[in-house]
Amino acid sequence: MAKVSLKPGTMLNPLPAVMVSCSDGDLDNVLTIAWTGIINSEPPITYVSVRKSRYSHQLIEKSGEFVINLVNEELVRSADYCGVKSGRNEDKFAKCNLSKIHADHVKAPLIKESPVNLECKVLEIKEYQTHDMFIAEIVAVHADEELFDDDGRIRLDLAGMVAFNHGEYFGIKRKPIGRFGFSVMKKSTKKRINREAKEKRQKRNEARKRKA
Amino acid sequence: MAKVSLKPGTMLNPLPAVMVSCSDGDLDNVLTIAWTGIINSEPPITYVSVRKSRYSHQLIEKSGEFVINLVNEELVRSADYCGVKSGRNEDKFAKCNLSKIHADHVKAPLIKESPVNLECKVLEIKEYQTHDMFIAEIVAVHADEELFDDDGRIRLDLAGMVAFNHGEYFGIKRKPIGRFGFSVMKKSTKKRINREAKEKRQKRNEARKRKA
Ligand SMILES: Cc1cc2nc3c(=O)[nH]c(=O)nc-3n(C[C@H](O)[C@H](O)[C@H](O)COP(=O)(O)O)c2cc1C
Ligand SMILES: Cc1cc2nc3c(=O)[nH]c(=O)nc-3n(C[C@H](O)[C@H](O)[C@H](O)COP(=O)(O)O)c2cc1C
Repeated sequence: MAKVSLKPGTMLNPLPAVMVSCSDGDLDNVLTIAWTGIINSEPPITYVSVRKSRYSHQLIEKSGEFVINLVNEELVRSADYCGVKSGRNEDKFAKCNLSKIHADHVKAPLIKESPVNLECKVLEIKEYQTHDMFIAEIVAVHADEELFDDDGRIRLDLAGMVAFNHGEYFGIKRKPIGRFGFSVMKKSTKKRINREAKEKRQKRNEARKRKA
Repeated sequence: MAKVSLKPGTMLNPLPAVMVSCSDGDLDNVLTIAWTGIINSEPPITYVSVRKSRYSHQLIEKSGEFVINLVNEELVRSADYCGVKSGRNEDKFAKCNLSKIHADHVKAPLIKESPVNLECKVLEIKEYQTHDMFIAEIVAVHADEELFDDDGRIRLDLAGMVAFNHGEYFGIKRKPIGRFGFSVMKKSTKKRINREAKEKRQKRNEARKRKA
């Protein structure tokens, strides 16, 4: 396969597309952000890069706080809407029928319909030519009750998460290709894990049948 | 849906999992990185956050350069391997049968098997508790010839890209949920776009038949 050279650009893919809620204590807003990522593991540090022209920019700058709300397939249409319309002109929470939940540490509300919410406190603002980077510590995480399995483990693989790939939203496939480290896993370990998963599935199904 | 609170953590999902190649001019290495993202659009600025303990850390620090190689389904196994084994002990390019292509502006090689390669030059290193953030300008982009359609547009939707979701690798679904702005698109525009896409598909199929 020969390579074609393109002009330098932001061709990193796929990316998350998250709904970022923010507030000045009075007015709540939400915008969609693909320019985000994890910077540090412990403590957990993230960022969002926001153009100065966004209405949300002034809310985040003023409050020093925001919430990252992850997006699943059911939320895509709202995420897209919040990424093309401005809170300057309308109440996007109302327009998209998004419900608010009080956060523990920040004024910005959690979006109830989002499967996972990260409360963030800004540590630093770094200005670049087109975007300002709000570097922030993740101070609290919330997730839907429904996402936890019987062992109390969160099952994001069942959450219907969405990836943003070169301008388009895509669901991710149901079946994982593998888990971190699968390429070097011993056959016996893989067998054990598969057996345990099967047993758990059977138990769950039986429990479901008993309930029904 | 009630919310469950978790301890603060890096729960941003899904993320890319890219293969980052680096070199000291003599020795080439590749490691896998999920802590990456776009910081600025023009000029295109990205970052990778790398633990000091990684062998690649010293190569990137010394050279001030790296290449981000995107990962598709065929590359996942290699990406995983390069994310658990260290270049300190083995040549991961050889081990994974990865081919090298000379980059235009940096010493680190492009991975030929990767659909898209971003040449990056470090602008700044920001140190955090567990990871150092290498902020870098994207100075060149290369993509597989095969990814371009008849109109010269790159079709990343057909590239079989992979997302990293809470410790597991997932393919993304074939059919997009929608394109940036789909939530506010006029019906007439949507119809026109669908018609044009259909015509293009038909043309492509006819051309294929003629060739066969
Ligand atoms: C998928 C998607 C990703 C986006 N990513 C960003 C981003 O990373 N940074 C940014 O400044 N704007 C981004 N936008 C655009 C803003 O969300 C959009 O301009 C929004 O209308 C701003 O709302 P506000 O004026 O209420 O703050 C994105 C939009 C979409 C649809
Ligand atoms: C999916 C995946 C994502 C990873 N992301 C990162 C990361 O963002 N930062 C980091 O320092 N290590 C990350 N790692 C771990 C390194 O890739 C791994 O430690 C590797 O063996 C280092 O290789 P090296 O010693 O040759 O540099 C990741 C591993 C995997 C499998």
